[in-house]
Amino acid sequence: MSKILVFGHQNPDTDAIGAAIAFSHLQNELGNETEAVALGTPNEETQYALDHFQLSAPRVVESAKAENADVMLVDHNEFQQSISDISEVNILAVVDHHRIANFETANPLYYRAEPVGCTSTIILKLYKENQVTIPKEIAGIMLSAIISDTLLFKSPTCTPEDEAAAKELAAIAEVDLTAYGLEMLKAGTNLSDKSAAVLLDLDAKSFPMGSSNVRIAQVNTVDLNEVMDRQAELEAAMEEEMKANGYDLFVLVVTNILDSDSELLVAGKGKEKVEEAFQTTLTNNRALLKGVVSRKKQVVPHLTAVFS
Amino acid sequence: MSKILVFGHQNPDTDAIGAAIAFSHLQNELGNETEAVALGTPNEETQYALDHFQLSAPRVVESAKAENADVMLVDHNEFQQSISDISEVNILAVVDHHRIANFETANPLYYRAEPVGCTSTIILKLYKENQVTIPKEIAGIMLSAIISDTLLFKSPTCTPEDEAAAKELAAIAEVDLTAYGLEMLKAGTNLSDKSAAVLLDLDAKSFPMGSSNVRIAQVNTVDLNEVMDRQAELEAAMEEEMKANGYDLFVLVVTNILDSDSELLVAGKGKEKVEEAFQTTLTNNRALLKGVVSRKKQVVPHLTAVFS
Repeated sequence: MSKILVFGHQNPDTDAIGAAIAFSHLQNELGNETEAVALGTPNEETQYALDHFQLSAPRVVESAKAENADVMLVDHNEFQQSISDISEVNILAVVDHHRIANFETANPLYYRAEPVGCTSTIILKLYKENQVTIPKEIAGIMLSAIISDTLLFKSPTCTPEDEAAAKELAAIAEVDLTAYGLEMLKAGTNLSDKSAAVLLDLDAKSFPMGSSNVRIAQVNTVDLNEVMDRQAELEAAMEEEMKANGYDLFVLVVTNILDSDSELLVAGKGKEKVEEAFQTTLTNNRALLKGVVSRKKQVVPHLTAVFS
Repeated sequence: MSKILVFGHQNPDTDAIGAAIAFSHLQNELGNETEAVALGTPNEETQYALDHFQLSAPRVVESAKAENADVMLVDHNEFQQSISDISEVNILAVVDHHRIANFETANPLYYRAEPVGCTSTIILKLYKENQVTIPKEIAGIMLSAIISDTLLFKSPTCTPEDEAAAKELAAIAEVDLTAYGLEMLKAGTNLSDKSAAVLLDLDAKSFPMGSSNVRIAQVNTVDLNEVMDRQAELEAAMEEEMKANGYDLFVLVVTNILDSDSELLVAGKGKEKVEEAFQTTLTNNRALLKGVVSRKKQVVPHLTAVFS
């Protein structure tokens, strides 16, 4: 057996990568031999955070079986969001803050989920429960994950625990929370040099809903128009992705992190369901959703409800 | 909304009922309004423990929807082991020590699983993490659950954590662990007033193995002879069950909880496979297996191997 692989979901965001680094470090301190890896390369926001705290990006892996490794999952559990051969390997642990679905194991395991805004908030608890000291750079990447997942505490997914954890981690990481947080979030909104295909894949997840395969991508921006000016190009890329991957419906959520609003761009079958879900009317395949910033809490449940 | 219902699996054992009582009490102390309920009446072992610590048996419920209640699960997660309408209600929390399968939620939840011998061992941790004092009678029923699930630490499913938890709880409950444990386990071995059919159904599960349908029942006793004196009656009942339910092979595992040995009584097709699995010879359809007490860890895997 090789080292145990610790990783977050496909299309990794800052929590997927940060929680993997932090949980792997904790496990190693507890005597397990683990390696933090990732199912993709860091996005610009995550890279900004890694650079700031002088951490290397985790090695990208595509198969756990190929390395003869047991695995630990962070920030996800649904098999379709995980490594390709997840159903063939032994899952030792999961730390997550999402719903549980399309997940099963042959053996008892360690599973820790809490309905908080960020996996790294839970991992801070695990460090404390195990009385392990958090190194400065690990605190920094955990802090970055909380800022990212909660959009600096503006997302409705954010709980008082997330905010308290961020403050505690900022002290260990020796950064000014708000100043660092805004810089980091802005680093992830540089979309102009990205192709439509890249943009759609920055933070995208698939969800089986009823008999439909729904793809929901999210991009953060400080200017909705900058993204929506590229509507034709985006719609063409969405159609291509749907054809290539068998998605029935593609929903792009463009989120203004300064105003805490989102605009939807929708392609595929089921546009009337999107209208029903958000009690809105699509105009030119678009709709503005005031106060919506969380895919998990404000988008997925509404869509799930109308599809089931 | 009514009180949140907290319950363990169908055909409840001492952990299913004890963990529900203990977790419900903890949740109430934390400010939630919950009620410990059960999906069946206590068996004799559990009733002994409840009586000893002057606790009432939880109310039996058959539907969560009928009470308009959210739910918290202990000691199980697989929907087929849960309340009949589990897929239609909101699951807020799970505390368990089994594999995860046939389980899903629409929303993020609290999920705490650890690969230990008993759910109540995990619940003791939760009391500590939340700095809630455990009342004497609650400590008693949690202790009883650990003794039951680990057969007083003799089962291979028992971990050092379970044993340490039991010692800690015995001190709070003010009982002599070994003396109380043996009395409680013995209370569950009162088989003399049960018909052979009832005895075969106390704790029985079916397993598809290769092309065979194998039924494995287990009963605990402090005197193997007391059970084996009824061999003819038991064999007749096994034949009847096989005919009625299409089992190919019926294995009754009679476990002496004092000596930690088991005697098999075997009926049906595949006796030579039983001999191969346990490298033994059946005499008069019986064989003594030294040190075998766990169906899950010491019986099913060996049989599965020779049938596949």
